[in-house]
Order: sequence, then C-alpha cells, then structure tokens
Amino acid sequence: MTGKLERLKEILGEVADLNRAGAVLAWDQETFMPPGGVENRADQLTTLERISHSRFASDEVGVLLDAADGDVAQLPFDSDDASLVRVTRRDYEQARKLPLDLVGEIARAGTIARPVWQKAREEANFSLFAPYLERNVELNRRVADALGYKKRPYDALLDRTEPGLSTDQLEEIFTELKQAIVPLVADVARNADAVDDSVLHRGFDPDVQVRYALELVTKLGYDIERGRQDLSTHPFTIPFGPGDVRITTRVSREFFNECLFGSIHEAGHAMYYQGVGKSLDRTPLWDGASPGVHESQSRLWENMVGRSAAFWRHFYPSLRRAFPEALKGVDEEQFFRAVNKSYPSLIRVEADEVTYNLHILMRFELENEMLEGSLKVRDLPEAWNARVKEYLGIEVPNDSVGVLQDIHWSWVDFAVFPGYTLGNLIGAQLMEKIRGEMPDLDGQIERGEFGPLLKWLQGRVYQHGRKFTPNELMERATGKPVSAEPWIAYVREKFGALYGAKAGR
Amino acid sequence: MTGKLERLKEILGEVADLNRAGAVLAWDQETFMPPGGVENRADQLTTLERISHSRFASDEVGVLLDAADGDVAQLPFDSDDASLVRVTRRDYEQARKLPLDLVGEIARAGTIARPVWQKAREEANFSLFAPYLERNVELNRRVADALGYKKRPYDALLDRTEPGLSTDQLEEIFTELKQAIVPLVADVARNADAVDDSVLHRGFDPDVQVRYALELVTKLGYDIERGRQDLSTHPFTIPFGPGDVRITTRVSREFFNECLFGSIHEAGHAMYYQGVGKSLDRTPLWDGASPGVHESQSRLWENMVGRSAAFWRHFYPSLRRAFPEALKGVDEEQFFRAVNKSYPSLIRVEADEVTYNLHILMRFELENEMLEGSLKVRDLPEAWNARVKEYLGIEVPNDSVGVLQDIHWSWVDFAVFPGYTLGNLIGAQLMEKIRGEMPDLDGQIERGEFGPLLKWLQGRVYQHGRKFTPNELMERATGKPVSAEPWIAYVREKFGALYGAKAGR
Repeated sequence: MTGKLERLKEILGEVADLNRAGAVLAWDQETFMPPGGVENRADQLTTLERISHSRFASDEVGVLLDAADGDVAQLPFDSDDASLVRVTRRDYEQARKLPLDLVGEIARAGTIARPVWQKAREEANFSLFAPYLERNVELNRRVADALGYKKRPYDALLDRTEPGLSTDQLEEIFTELKQAIVPLVADVARNADAVDDSVLHRGFDPDVQVRYALELVTKLGYDIERGRQDLSTHPFTIPFGPGDVRITTRVSREFFNECLFGSIHEAGHAMYYQGVGKSLDRTPLWDGASPGVHESQSRLWENMVGRSAAFWRHFYPSLRRAFPEALKGVDEEQFFRAVNKSYPSLIRVEADEVTYNLHILMRFELENEMLEGSLKVRDLPEAWNARVKEYLGIEVPNDSVGVLQDIHWSWVDFAVFPGYTLGNLIGAQLMEKIRGEMPDLDGQIERGEFGPLLKWLQGRVYQHGRKFTPNELMERATGKPVSAEPWIAYVREKFGALYGAKAGR
Repeated sequence: MTGKLERLKEILGEVADLNRAGAVLAWDQETFMPPGGVENRADQLTTLERISHSRFASDEVGVLLDAADGDVAQLPFDSDDASLVRVTRRDYEQARKLPLDLVGEIARAGTIARPVWQKAREEANFSLFAPYLERNVELNRRVADALGYKKRPYDALLDRTEPGLSTDQLEEIFTELKQAIVPLVADVARNADAVDDSVLHRGFDPDVQVRYALELVTKLGYDIERGRQDLSTHPFTIPFGPGDVRITTRVSREFFNECLFGSIHEAGHAMYYQGVGKSLDRTPLWDGASPGVHESQSRLWENMVGRSAAFWRHFYPSLRRAFPEALKGVDEEQFFRAVNKSYPSLIRVEADEVTYNLHILMRFELENEMLEGSLKVRDLPEAWNARVKEYLGIEVPNDSVGVLQDIHWSWVDFAVFPGYTLGNLIGAQLMEKIRGEMPDLDGQIERGEFGPLLKWLQGRVYQHGRKFTPNELMERATGKPVSAEPWIAYVREKFGALYGAKAGR
C-alpha cells in the first residue's frame, strides 16, 4: 500500500470516528439524556457533522482517491482496498455534487417542516402541511438535478440509498407484488376469523418482557459483550464500531408484539453490523450494503425466523414459564397463529407481513408522481385515499391516519420507503437459498440451534459490509439479482396455510 | 463586537462542542459501554482530542487573540469578553508552549506506566514501578522547563491547574496546616472511643440508598431536569453544557457513607457547573475556576453541610423511614457523630475530614522533592513511610497501602493533589463568610431550606465560571486570598466538640 492510500485511510478513519461519536450522542439523546440537554446536544451534533463533512468532501480526499486508483487497479474487485476506493469514490462524488447551500436549505427545510407536519397530523389538516411538502418536493427535484440521472429523477435519489437499482426495476418489482398481493389480502380479509390474536392483548409484565426479549436475542446470536439493549420511544439499532452495536426496544403491557418482535427486528440489524469484517473497520465499507439489505436482516430474523412455527416450538415453553397467567390455556400452535394475524390496516408501522409492502408500493408511486409532476401536492390526499381503497380495500377516515401518518415527507429525502420492501424481498430470496443449502433449517430452529443460519448469513452477507451493491451482493449470495418471486411464494405458502385461503392464485 | 471576536468565539464554540462530545463518550464508557467497546472508543476519543487540540492551538486562534486584545482593552476586567480573551490567551500560550512530541511522549508514558503501576500495587513491589516513575518525574521536569517558571519547577505545573498560586504560597499554607493538624490528629486518636460508627456497617439496601441519595441531592438544589445520576466504579461529575451535568455514585450494602456522601460530593460539583453563567456557554470560561475551587464545592456540600448536626436534624427522620431496620435504636445525634468518625488511616480516599489534608501535604512535599532532585525515586518508599509515621502516627505495612496506593503517579501530571486540600480550605473560607452574612444558616439547613445558601454560592462563585483565578475569586467573595485559618478553626471546633479533645491547641 502506498503512502497515499495510507493517508486516505487515516482521513476516512477520522471521519468514521467523528460519525461514531455523533452516533453515541444520538443514542444518548434517545435513551438517557435529561430534557435540559437538547440545546447543547444540537450544537455538539452540528459541529461533529460539519467537521466530518468538511474532512470527507475535501479537495485532499479527491486527490488521494485519484492517486489510489492506480494502486488498486490490479487488485481483485472484491478485495478490501479495491472496494474501499470504488465505494468511497461513489460517496465522495455524491457529497461533492451537492452544493453546500442546497445542503443547508435542505437541513433548514426539514427543521421548519417537522413541527408543521406534527401540527397538521394532530389536527388532521393537510392544507397546513401542503406548502411545506411542495417545497420539499421542489428540493428533491433540485437534489436529483444536482446528482444527475439518465432517465427519471427518482433514479438519482435511489442511487444514494440503493446503488445500482433503477426506478424502472423497482416499478417492475412493485407491479409483480401488486398483482400477487392485492388478491391475497382480499382472500385473507374474507377469512379473517381463521386467526385469533386476543391472547396478545391479555397483559404482560413489562419488565419480564424486556428481560425475556434480551435473553432471546442473545440466543439468536446477538453478542451482548459487544452491545446492549435499552428502552426508547421508537426502537432502533446504532453501531459505534464492531465492538459496540446497541439496540433499543419499547414495551407495552397491552400488546405483546411490540417488545419481543421489536427486539428481534433490531437484533437482526445488530447481528449484521456485528458480522461486518473487522478489516473494514473505520472505513466507509464498515456498514450494511444498503438500507434495503439491512432491512432484509431485521425482517428475516423477525418474520421468517421469529414468526415461524419451528421458532415457537422451541421458545414457547420458556415463554409460558415467563408469563404463566397471560398464556394460560393457550398452546404453541395458537400462539404461533396469533403472532401472524393479518388484516388490512391504515397505518404502515402496524401492518403485518402480507399487507406491509402495499403501504410501501403506494408511497413509491406517489413520490414518483409528485417528483415527475403528474401529481400536484394539493391532490395528494385524494390520490392517497383512492390507493388505500384499491390496494387494501379500506376507507381512510381522515388525513391523520392517511397521508399525514409518516414523518418521512417532513424530511426532504424521498426514496427512503422502497428500502422497507426491498428488505422483505431480499430476506425471502436469501431464505430460499438457505433452505436449499440447509434442508434441516426448521429442525435446527426447533432445537434452538441458530449458529448455522447466522454463520451462513455472516459468510454470504454480513462480512462484506458495503463492498457490493444490493444486486451484486444478491448475485453472489443467490445467483440472481433482487427479485420478488421468493417473497411472493413465501407469503402465499405461509398465509395460505394460516388462512386456508387460495393464496391469491 | 468585531468580526474577529465573533470568529474567535465560533472556533472556541467548536472546540467546546468537541470536548463535550468527548465527555459524553467518556461518561458512556464508565457507565453503560459494553466490554467490547474499549478499542473503538479509544479511537473515537483520540480523534476528538486531536481535532480539538489542533483547532485550539492553531495559528488562527493566535492571530484572532491578538486582534481581540484591542477590542476588549476598554472593557471591565470582569466583563465576559475581557475575561474570555484573558483566560483563553493563558490556555493558548500553555498549549503552544508544549512541543507536540512531548505531548505525545506524555500520553504514551502514561499508557505504558499504568498497567505496571497496577501490577506493582497488586504485588506490593515498588521496584517494578520505580523506573516508570523516574521517567514520569523526568517528563514533569521537561514540562516545567517548556512552560517556564521564575523560581521552582512546581510553579510551572501548578500554574496550569491553580493559576496564580505559587509553590511558596502553598508551602506556607501546608506548614500552617501541619502545625495545627498533627497535634489534633493525635488528640482525636487518643479519644477514638468517643465516636462509634458501627451503625454505618449494619447493612443498607443498595437500591433504596441510591434512590434516597438522588432525592436528597435534588433537595439540595441539583437540577435533575439538567442532569441524572448513574452508577460507576468511581463516582464522578461530568458536564456536557449548562443543560446536562451528570453525576455518578457507587453503593455498598456494608458501608453507608459511600453512596450518600459520594452523591452529595458529586452534586456539589454539579451544582457549580449548573450555576455557571449561561452567557459563558461554549467558551473556555464555562467551567469551574480551578480544580481546587471545584473541590471546595464538593467538600462544602459533602462535609460542611452534609456532615453537620443541623443537616441530620432535618434529614434523619426520612432516613429512618427509608431504613427502619438498620437504624433501629439509633437517634440523630448518634448518627451525626457516626458519619463524623475520625481516625488516622493509611488510604487517602478513605480518610476523614481531619486527617485528609495530611495525606495531601505529604504528596505535595514528595512531588516537590522528586522534581527538584533532593529525593531519589528509589528512596521514595522510605520517605513515604517515615512521613506517614510522623504525620499520622501509624506504620505502613507494605507499599500497596503506601506509596503505590494512588493512580496519580502513573500519569505524568504532578501538581494535581494540592487541589484536594485547596478545596477544603476554600470551602471553609467561603463558609466563614456565609455564616457572617447569613447568621441563621443552621436554622435554614435544619428546616431543609437550601435555596439561600445555593443562591449565595451561585452569585459569588458559580456564575463567574473560569473568569477569575482562585485568589481573585476569593478576594472578591471573601475579601482575602486563599487562606488556611478558617478551615483550621472549623475542624478544631467541630472535632474538638465531637471528641472532647483540646483540639490541638
């Protein structure tokens, strides 16, 4: 390695340290910070971000990248150093393409729009928020223009979050999903009584829930020597490096799913971080491949493992010992069915496995239409409600539980939602491959042996960090680019069995 | 204010943010960080320190300080801006005088010496540690030479921690203390049976202790909306800005004093920070005047308030309700006497109010003798043991509980110990003044009214932050520079009464 590459890594290491320090501060803010700390913390985070950005987007990094290109030209595509230079250059070019005043405008617009969105949601009054959303759409357009795109403005935004995926490719995937899922949702709705989930609302001691959840995720493979679990309003996973990846959860006495499945979801993210190759530490490669690939791991562990019959054959006895009163008279089969209850609902974050992607699909469509000008912001509520009716078969009573429900559009960033659906699809695609190579997977899960599954995922996905784009990673791991088929097959089989439905076929 | 002063404040604000971010990381490391996080955290802290130092000690700050001198020349000495430029210049010149390679050598020497000191202490084998201490003495000499001094090398080191105080002045103070305290200690030791502290070892529920301690310190005035209390191995106070000043405590079932008096001690530091003027936020003035003045507040609240008879007349009833079993048959007078038990002991951190300063005195003497070459490091254990015998009247059985007990000499920094004694003296000097102005202080304390005392301290001490040197501050607050007399009078009276001793006179 030449001195140039060394120097590049030094700077990238400092940038990583600054970002991780910011992450510790953000974690503290969500968990333990007293109310008086808000103002000081905002100053601290702003300073860390400004210094980190100015170090990374500096002329020096550009010069070093140019010099490093030659150094890595002969190295294999997947080597640490070649990947480092390739991915860092992508980040660098994106960072340099955005004019600083646009970055500032975006930060300000988000800060101003957020309380307005909050008020509009409280009052179910979209017209309050509309001018701010118009401004955000306009800023998204300017970001797309600054970054550049060949075909559609959404491509530019998507390339920041899910590099290598195009809007057209996503549209194809979503069309396939729509055709398969809309009829399945209708089938399930017709047979709604087939699953009774009242047991989940019987009342579960919160302290016991939190303790049980943490013990369970450590059994899955979350390494608590390199992490910890705390409580926060919204669960999240946050990494400060390979040695310290933390999760949070929340807990409700009245609804069992929140804590346990929240913890498994976050532990999925956390195990991904904990499995990234140590040689990538303190570089831009020490992260997940993309938000979508990251979400594949939270979803895989939460739903495909944590909501499987084999999983509950293993854990139900201990769960019953932990909650003898609440689970009286309920057997493992009933419990497994309860945690898989599916029904069309208004709120994305409460949606089940079957309906979830339809919530994302409509947001993806609406973002594109606004960005391309075919949908005016003032017409958004009408379009929203029509799509809920079409896809989920339900009426939206007011905008609070409709178009105003998500915080995302109060930020400027579009193209964040697709990651959630990509996560579901990628998880299923990996799982199809895993089942092919590990035919006894259910047996292992039933015996509480999660090591082989984790090892497979570490070897094929986690260790590579951010070396590959989602499609590159999936080609390597499964032989195919990202595809909707495995997930469609998975939900048809699982929910067909649960609901005795024709599974939309 | 000119653009230059504005720009200076901008840079100082960034430096403050970086240092505070480092403080959050350090707090986390001592409270919640999982064991695996050590390595990543070291990288993060090193990066933050390096950037903070290079911003502060930059040529630009020097140029801005020169430009700002003219701006503040007409302002009053105690104005925010004049104080800012004056104190920042002092810090800046010290930072610039130390060559970067010396700073690096010091950091490395400390890192290398610490585990050796630990092993030497475990094995009670001073000869293991001696070469490292020799090196540390040598580095202290080089620091003193780099900083410069008129008379004695210790002056240079002392000026960094307690600006304006000279080694000669301290020597005078310590001589006065020695003459007054050595006979008092002997008196107290002869009447040791006058105070029985067995009640403190009866067993106190740890959770109740921690809860009680936090409730108590909020009654004293620690603002929990701008702070919190957690557990750590060694109690400490750490500020992240006026809105967030945290304390930690520790708890022992077998020894009551640790948690409660630890919490009051730290709350004293914390109330100081919480009272610094908000206009000084994000500048080098947002801090205590010096470690010694800071310690005056922890000691004042812990000992002069928290170990007073009036204090326990107020709190004992609620303490008894919290620990009905442990405190059965013990009245408030017995309890007040128990928490004031005095006896000569080997270990500094366990020493009581009377004997504590003698531990500091001998360390101050020995540091000076090593620095000036009149004491060789190899002869240190002998000198140590002789001084313990002379001042405290006891024998040192081995170096683990003797010369190897403190971590401080494994760091390079000398001249830290005197701050502990200065704290005791300054606390008593302030208290003398307060009692003169507030004759009903004991009545207020007995009624649980701590507001007037806190307000006095805020007005005369806390709000000024780091504007004044210890002597300047004491001149303003009490009309006199730092002096030993009030403290000597205080312990003579208090312990004379407790032990019926002649109080060393």
